[in-house]
Amino acid sequence: MTHWIRFRHAGDMFGSPTATGKTLSLSDVTPLAPTAAGKMLALWNNFHALAEKLGQEIPPEPLYFIKANGSYLGTGGIIRKPPSYDGKVVFEGELGIVIGRECRAVSPAQAADYIFGYTCINDVTAVEIIGRDATFAQWTRAKSFDTFGVFGPVVATGLDPSTLCVRTVLNDQERQNYPVSDMIFEPVKIVSIVSQDMTLDAGDVICCGTSVGVGSMKPGSTIEVTIDGIGTLSNRYEN
Amino acid sequence: MTHWIRFRHAGDMFGSPTATGKTLSLSDVTPLAPTAAGKMLALWNNFHALAEKLGQEIPPEPLYFIKANGSYLGTGGIIRKPPSYDGKVVFEGELGIVIGRECRAVSPAQAADYIFGYTCINDVTAVEIIGRDATFAQWTRAKSFDTFGVFGPVVATGLDPSTLCVRTVLNDQERQNYPVSDMIFEPVKIVSIVSQDMTLDAGDVICCGTSVGVGSMKPGSTIEVTIDGIGTLSNRYEN
Repeated sequence: MTHWIRFRHAGDMFGSPTATGKTLSLSDVTPLAPTAAGKMLALWNNFHALAEKLGQEIPPEPLYFIKANGSYLGTGGIIRKPPSYDGKVVFEGELGIVIGRECRAVSPAQAADYIFGYTCINDVTAVEIIGRDATFAQWTRAKSFDTFGVFGPVVATGLDPSTLCVRTVLNDQERQNYPVSDMIFEPVKIVSIVSQDMTLDAGDVICCGTSVGVGSMKPGSTIEVTIDGIGTLSNRYEN
Repeated sequence: MTHWIRFRHAGDMFGSPTATGKTLSLSDVTPLAPTAAGKMLALWNNFHALAEKLGQEIPPEPLYFIKANGSYLGTGGIIRKPPSYDGKVVFEGELGIVIGRECRAVSPAQAADYIFGYTCINDVTAVEIIGRDATFAQWTRAKSFDTFGVFGPVVATGLDPSTLCVRTVLNDQERQNYPVSDMIFEPVKIVSIVSQDMTLDAGDVICCGTSVGVGSMKPGSTIEVTIDGIGTLSNRYEN
């Protein structure tokens, strides 16, 4: 298993990167979000437990939106309350798929070869915006504020996602702890289906959706999403 | 007024580009989409005439989604029917705003300084996908197929958008011809409001929404969006 951050390698992370040989203490660097994602897709309603809790039907296909590229934030970065919004801002701990190479119309069996690895996601959401217009659900706007697309601390390769658990801790209190195996559409299925819709590129991130335990954050909070085998994505939320 | 395509200039188009001095016949080049947009936002329900026709209320704020970056296509490119979809595919002729520099939380009065210019848009849509799941409107999916984010032929600077008309011609039949002045949210207002939500970057494109006359295309069609002062965005639609 290898853990990738964007630091101290020369060349294309998805090609044949070479280590520069320099070593730095992690405490001396500020990690970026671990890929320069061209796009970040995110699924809604992809866990049986949450669908059951909310009384949602199991969707016949993955339902997704795009989080704007200006929202990306790595571990240690500060999630900011949007100045233009005073409603509830929620965390959503998730597994993230990182695409390794250009991918178009692949089968689920082929999809594994196009997945570079996995990362932790905090799909931060200005939740009261989604439904505030009765005619048009504003997923993009609610999910795309600067600093709302949080992922990292690394991209981990060589993991079997079905064995993973997503744990979210708000101010030292565990709020989410759910198995990835409860997913409605597993990662290879998601990549296969989305790749029928659009070309996916190296570095693109797909957030697999969240499960039970989502909650709101107050400015001054610390929010951590941990997936064993990947690490902990830790951020503060501030005004 | 200057018309920009991505060809034969050195340097950053949004910085201080210099002409290389070489001249080529336009018929000898295949123009790309005129900017390498980091993101393409698109508005829904932004014209009084279409809102009235559809019985939609005038929205209190711009309602928008994101078209995936893999969908971008320039003039002359072929719009492709998605292999995975057999429903109606519609054209939507629109005005597009091209952002010229990083833009965050600007006022409408300031916004003009962040608009580099304007382009023609064909916001191609697999329209039956939008509503096929009752629980989640699939704007992103319906609008993000490869080749569905059509813009060009150029970015034109020095235009007053309120004087422009958008004309869409399908196989030599005029299908749309509407004044930009009928917009609910005009370009500087759109840029101002969106910039409260997210940082906009040089090259980003905002599609201003369409008006009456949208219709479906059959494979083999030619579809042209013309805005006098910008030019004609001409594409074929094929299987």
